[in-house]
This record gives sequence, structure tokens and C-alpha cells, in this order.
Amino acid sequence: MKKIALVLLLNSFFAFSQTDAEMLRSIHTQALTNSNCYAWLDHLSNKIGQRLSGSAGAEKAIQYTKAEMEKMGFDKVYLQEVMVPKWVRGKKETAYIQDGKNKINVPICALGGSIATPKGGLTAEVIEVYDFEQLAKLGDKVKGKIVFFNHPMDPKNIDAFTSYGEAGKFRWMGPGEALKYGAAGTICRSLSLSLNDFPHTGSTGYRDAPKDKWIPAAAISTNAAELLSKKLKENPQLKFSFTQSCEILDDVLSYNVIGEIRGSEHPEKIMVVGGHLDSWDLGDGAHDDGAGVVQSMEVFRILKSLNYRPKNTIRVVLFMNEENGGRGGKKYNEQAQANNENHIFALESDCGGFSPRGYSIESSDANYNKVMEFKDLLAPFLLYQIFKGHGGSDIEPLESKNILKVGLRPDTQRYFDYHHAGNDKFDAINKRELELGAAAMASLVYLIDVHGIAQ
Amino acid sequence: MKKIALVLLLNSFFAFSQTDAEMLRSIHTQALTNSNCYAWLDHLSNKIGQRLSGSAGAEKAIQYTKAEMEKMGFDKVYLQEVMVPKWVRGKKETAYIQDGKNKINVPICALGGSIATPKGGLTAEVIEVYDFEQLAKLGDKVKGKIVFFNHPMDPKNIDAFTSYGEAGKFRWMGPGEALKYGAAGTICRSLSLSLNDFPHTGSTGYRDAPKDKWIPAAAISTNAAELLSKKLKENPQLKFSFTQSCEILDDVLSYNVIGEIRGSEHPEKIMVVGGHLDSWDLGDGAHDDGAGVVQSMEVFRILKSLNYRPKNTIRVVLFMNEENGGRGGKKYNEQAQANNENHIFALESDCGGFSPRGYSIESSDANYNKVMEFKDLLAPFLLYQIFKGHGGSDIEPLESKNILKVGLRPDTQRYFDYHHAGNDKFDAINKRELELGAAAMASLVYLIDVHGIAQ
Repeated sequence: MKKIALVLLLNSFFAFSQTDAEMLRSIHTQALTNSNCYAWLDHLSNKIGQRLSGSAGAEKAIQYTKAEMEKMGFDKVYLQEVMVPKWVRGKKETAYIQDGKNKINVPICALGGSIATPKGGLTAEVIEVYDFEQLAKLGDKVKGKIVFFNHPMDPKNIDAFTSYGEAGKFRWMGPGEALKYGAAGTICRSLSLSLNDFPHTGSTGYRDAPKDKWIPAAAISTNAAELLSKKLKENPQLKFSFTQSCEILDDVLSYNVIGEIRGSEHPEKIMVVGGHLDSWDLGDGAHDDGAGVVQSMEVFRILKSLNYRPKNTIRVVLFMNEENGGRGGKKYNEQAQANNENHIFALESDCGGFSPRGYSIESSDANYNKVMEFKDLLAPFLLYQIFKGHGGSDIEPLESKNILKVGLRPDTQRYFDYHHAGNDKFDAINKRELELGAAAMASLVYLIDVHGIAQ
Repeated sequence: MKKIALVLLLNSFFAFSQTDAEMLRSIHTQALTNSNCYAWLDHLSNKIGQRLSGSAGAEKAIQYTKAEMEKMGFDKVYLQEVMVPKWVRGKKETAYIQDGKNKINVPICALGGSIATPKGGLTAEVIEVYDFEQLAKLGDKVKGKIVFFNHPMDPKNIDAFTSYGEAGKFRWMGPGEALKYGAAGTICRSLSLSLNDFPHTGSTGYRDAPKDKWIPAAAISTNAAELLSKKLKENPQLKFSFTQSCEILDDVLSYNVIGEIRGSEHPEKIMVVGGHLDSWDLGDGAHDDGAGVVQSMEVFRILKSLNYRPKNTIRVVLFMNEENGGRGGKKYNEQAQANNENHIFALESDCGGFSPRGYSIESSDANYNKVMEFKDLLAPFLLYQIFKGHGGSDIEPLESKNILKVGLRPDTQRYFDYHHAGNDKFDAINKRELELGAAAMASLVYLIDVHGIAQ
């Protein structure tokens, strides 16, 4: 028995040692010496710019990435039709605090999906709340007023996404809750861990309320939130005024962009690698999620340049409309179900182009353990952080028996300095960090392609 | 036997479980919610600025940090005299490539310790070399020319410091090698992994050459190095001209700044936590090493605010002159030897204020294993990277039997974008990353204070 155990141990050791370790090294060398992802992102950010669903930028990004992918040696590159919501911001928003005779302008932006204010703006007294419980207790006192959700992201969490999850609900559910009590509008504190002057946009919604009950919803910068809170303590009767002219238009036709290479041994088994092509409209979406898009393309470029022929079918999928509808991810799944496809693996990069630290695993224990078997292979590349967590919004709808979903996990500390704000721009990207993220993705794609998922 | 092993296992489990895990959590919460390190760094960077040894800025930084530490509750705060070299840059340097009639200005800076050019500048033909072997082969052909060390930092290494170690020798030893063959001067490619227009300074030297043989030495930006190399291929006879007026003055008196709290159980055992107060003179030294200074001060602030009373004596040491002489570290050791002190632990932060990833351990195997025992306690804070490596330049001279030396290891990818260059400024610092680095330091100080080092 002992001898057999030793042989098994040695076998499993060799299976993971030479070739895999060398391949992971080659993948990283390719990424760090010969990448194209930074140049692609430069184009997406600086030549195209913002790519909100249904915008001219989104359309240009579809055509650009399709054309680039067509040069890369995929077996096929195609567009997948998807109807997307179209929300437009309109004129730049303005806001001020009216404290007696004192008028203080503050940085503001409409939340995605919000309606406009009346033409002359919405001016009302403000009620500050920390959470929905406090709102519910206030009840009718909220009537006719602007509800100010001032719930800072919790600085205590080491992972910034934990704080985003907690504080985020006041952005995306706040207006729907506030209108129940007759609020005239809502403003929320921007979801950022730093104090700055950038308002951070993002999706909001009105839950199940009928359209005629909807109220304008906006975000103010964290500095403005601190100021407003201070001023309210001094003068609870002060007024806040904001003007926004955003509009919800009819849905329009858009596309997921897909590049596919057929598997040499198991063409029926599909592995997806992706990010989302749409972005918010205030910056140029370099981190969210230009980075994920170009890293996904780079994964294929790396494997191709190393003459690696995948056993399974690999699809690079650039999803449309993650930010304000998630329609691209849903559509991709719909088509996968309609075609009875077998997806074994889906990997998404949508947490910024920062230094990669590991992977967030959404799967069965068996598949989690499968990834953990690669631990020692990944350690030389400082990919230590392998934990059970969310895979990604675009791959969330994807249904397939036993699928292993993974999110690339970069360092999270700087992400919410830029997320959905005007400074999410190309100059916030570090070339090597972007490349290392792509290498971390390619490494896991390779390992899963070779060693498979748990049965 | 088995039962005993289980009891031992449980004991060791409990020894490290509740109290330690809770303490590490408290340390991180203190750092992330109540820190003062960012404010201190703001003052050092924006109110004081560059702190090159012997400069007015260095003197102000000594007085400022001493005054701040005197407010913090140390048992004593004192200055330790140290004579430091004084090198001054003089007027802003200029340089150009003269390619026929075409004159192209390029960004340049004198290397620290270099002599000036003749008043009208040094103009000569250029010989590009990759390394010292190539230089030696050229031999006398170098005579009267400017040697251009164009040795890029290797992008393939995951740890940027590995590449710095390899390419760095051409900066610090290049002039000493080139003068052997009669070179008129040297320029080196800036030590940065990115292509940009910042020249990066840093120490250089002339090895054992007599003073009358010394030649002017400078660094040009990475973009300029690429351009010059390209131009040289087209026209090997082109000339390069640079003018610098730097000077080496007499040594001056300066200080290490030290705050000490006496150990409650083992006052004779000393633990050092430090960074270096001096900086280069092109930026404001926010990353190198303002970050290490304020993180070291923050370590004490955190422990104090948690009412933690150390068993061993803890000294926060702000070393002078790491950059161009290392005199502060040497002096600290001299005094330690003279006083027959017993140092058990020294921790330095001098790799930038970026997101911490772990620790570089310079010690016996037994002490390395001691730190590795804390692995599971450190993992929730993403401090995974514990490896044998350099502790730090300032703690390097410190001699003590069995001492455990540790360097805080932040993410290295961005460091050489700023290192020794004009953009090493406060705005390149992320507050949370700085705080997390301080928490990583305080965590290890606490663990070693409680559990000791290997015997």
C-alpha cells in the first residue's frame, strides 16, 4: 500500500511539475515582454472612450474588438445580437446646497437608470439616513424631501468589494425604498473608500414601483457628502437643489463579441474567458472593464503565440451591457441553452486592471479543491489568494452542470478610487499590472484545459 | 504518544488562535479607521519636500518627526548623531543629442555622488554597452568617449527588485568601470520598468579610483535611452552633450531620530522598526522612503492606541542617509555594539507604500520557520508572501546573535515608475495601501513580541 501511495504521489508530482511550471513561466514571459493588451486598452480608452450600452462608443468598441480579434487566428469571430437598454445622461448635472443665503456648489452625477429632475431642478429639504431601517422609522417625515443616503463604504474590510457589497445597496435600491415614503428624490454618497471630488455613478432602480412614482436619483462625491452631513447638523432646514436631464430611451440592438477556437480533443466542452465591453460614461472605463476586455483577448494571444493548442473549445467573450442591465450575460446563456452547449469553465476579469493576487472561485467543493491543487504552481507568480466567492456578473447567468466559474482577483485597494467615476481613465492603468492579470488568467485557462474540472 | 501529539497540537493551535487573531484584526482596524500616517506623510512630502542628507529638508524632517514622536507617548525620544556626506545637485542639468545638424534635448539628471562636467558641458561621441563584459572587450576604443550603459531592467521577473538588482550595478559601478578605459563620462538608462520621460537618480561611485580620475555620471530617461540607442544605430558618430554642476561638499552633522518604549518583561531585548528619513532630491520622496518613516511611527501609534504594552523594548528608528552612504544604519549599529545591546528583531519598510503582500526574511532557518508559523494568522490580511530575502539597507549593518531581520514587502510593480525620480510624490500614495503596510508591520512586531524568536 505504501509503495502504491508513493508512486501515486510521484505521478501526481510529475504531472504538475516540469511541463506545467515551465508553461506558466512561458505564459508570464509572453505577457511581460510581448503583450498587446496595453495597446488595445490605449485605443479603447483614448481613441474610443466611454462605451455605455447603446452609445456610439459602444458600437465603435464592438467593431474595433471584432476587427482586432479577426487578425488573431481564432477559428471564428462573430457577433451575438442582444437588445440593450439605452439611458442617456443629457447635460452635465449641477447641484448646490442652499444654506440660508449661502450657496455651495457640489459635484453630482445622475445614477444610471434615473429619471430627470423637473427642468428647473429639484429643490427640497434633505433628510440624511444611514440605512433602510432609519428610513422606515422616519416614514412620512420623508414626504416631499430629498433622502440623502450617507452610508460610507466600511474602511475596516481588507477586501474593498466586501464594503461595496454592503454600501452598494443604498445606491441601487435607495430610490425604490425612498419613494415608498413619498420622497421627492434621492442623493447617495459616492461608493468610494477615499475622500475626493469625483461623483461615482452606477445603476439604480425603482424596484416594483410604477413609472409615475419614480423620482430623480443622483450621487454626490464623498467630500460633498461629508460637507452636506456637517451642514445639516448645523442647519437641518437647509435645502439641496439638483438638476439632471437624463432619459431612458427605447432598447436598441447591440452585440456580444465572440472569438472561438475549437478544442482539439473535446470540442464539445467550452471554456469562456471574458470581460465586459460596455462602461459607464464619466471616464473612459479603462479599469471597468476595458482591462477585462483586453486581458481576455490577451489570454488567447499568449496561448497562440506559445503554439498552445487547447484540448477544449475556448471562447473569448466580450459581453455587452454588464453595467446597466446585464443583458449580454443573459443572452449568452440563452444561446448556450438553446444550443445545448456544455460549458465546463468560465473566467471573468471585472475587478480592475491592478496587480493580480488570485482567484475568486464559484463552484462545487470538488472544483474549488481542483483549483487548490494548482496552489504551488501559482505561488511563484504571487497568485496566493484562492477563495470561494463571486465569479463575475457576466458569467453569473451561465448554467451548465458542474461548471467552474472563476473571477480574476486583483488587488482591491485602489479600485473604488476610480470605479464608475470620471477618473477611471487609461492613465490609472499600470502596464505590468495589466499584463500580469492577463497572465494569471491564461495560466488558469491552461491548467484547466490540461487537467480538466472535477467530475 | 499520539495523545501527547494531539495535546501539543491543540496547545499550539490555541496559543495562536483567539487572542492573536483578534489582536491582528484590531491592529488592522486601528490602521484603517484611525491612522495618522497619511497626515504625517502629507507634511513630510508637501510641507518639507525633498530630504537629501545634509539638506535643509533633511534637517526639517528630523525636527518635525522628533516633535511628532514626542507627542506620542514613547518613554524617550532622542537624536543619534551621525556624520553624513553632502552632495548637492546644483543647477538643473541639461543634455542633448547632436546628430549632424539635428539637436534633440533629452531629460537627464546627475547621479548622486557624481562630479560636475566642465562648465560648458561635456560633449563627446557615445559608445553604447549592455554590460561590463562588452565594455571590457571594447577596451581602449572607449577612450575620450561617453559610455552609455543601456541595460534595461528585465521585464520577465515577477519581483521588480530582482530586475533592479541585476540592472542596478551599471548605475552604481558603471563610472568606476568606464574610467578604467579612459571614458570621458557615463550616462546610464534610468532604472525603471516603464517607458517615460523621468530621469531616475541614485547613488553612483568610482570604486577605488583616485579623485583626479573621476568622470561625470548621469542618468537619462528610459524614453531618451530608447531614442539614443536608435539614433546611434543610424549614426554611430553622433555626439552627446550634457552639463551638470553637482558638487561633493564636506561631511556634515545629521541625526537618526529614535523613539523608544521600554519592554515590560525583557527590557534588555530590543526590537527595531524603521525606515529612512533622507530621500533623493528630485521628487518629495513619498514612496522612498517617506512611507517607511510614517509607517514605522504608525506601528507605535497603533500598539499604543490598543493599550498594548510590549514585553520587549521597541525602538522606532528613522535612519538618516540610506540613499548615499548608509551612515545612519552603520552608526546605529556602532552604538548598539558600544552599548553591548541585544537586538532580537529588526523590521524595515523601504520598498514603497504600496499594498503589502508579505515579508522578506533575512535570518536563520529557525527564525524563518518561526515567522512561517504565523502564516495562517496573516492570511486573512492577504500577507501570503513570506520568503527568504533581504531585510533592508538600514538594518543590514546591525549585528546581534540570532537576530531576525525582516523587510516589509509591498507589491513591487509600480515602485520603479517613481523610484528616485521627480514623480515620487505624495499623490502617488494610496492612503489605504499605506495604512495596510503599517498594519502588516505592527502585526509582525506584535507576534514576535509575544512569541519571541527562535532560540
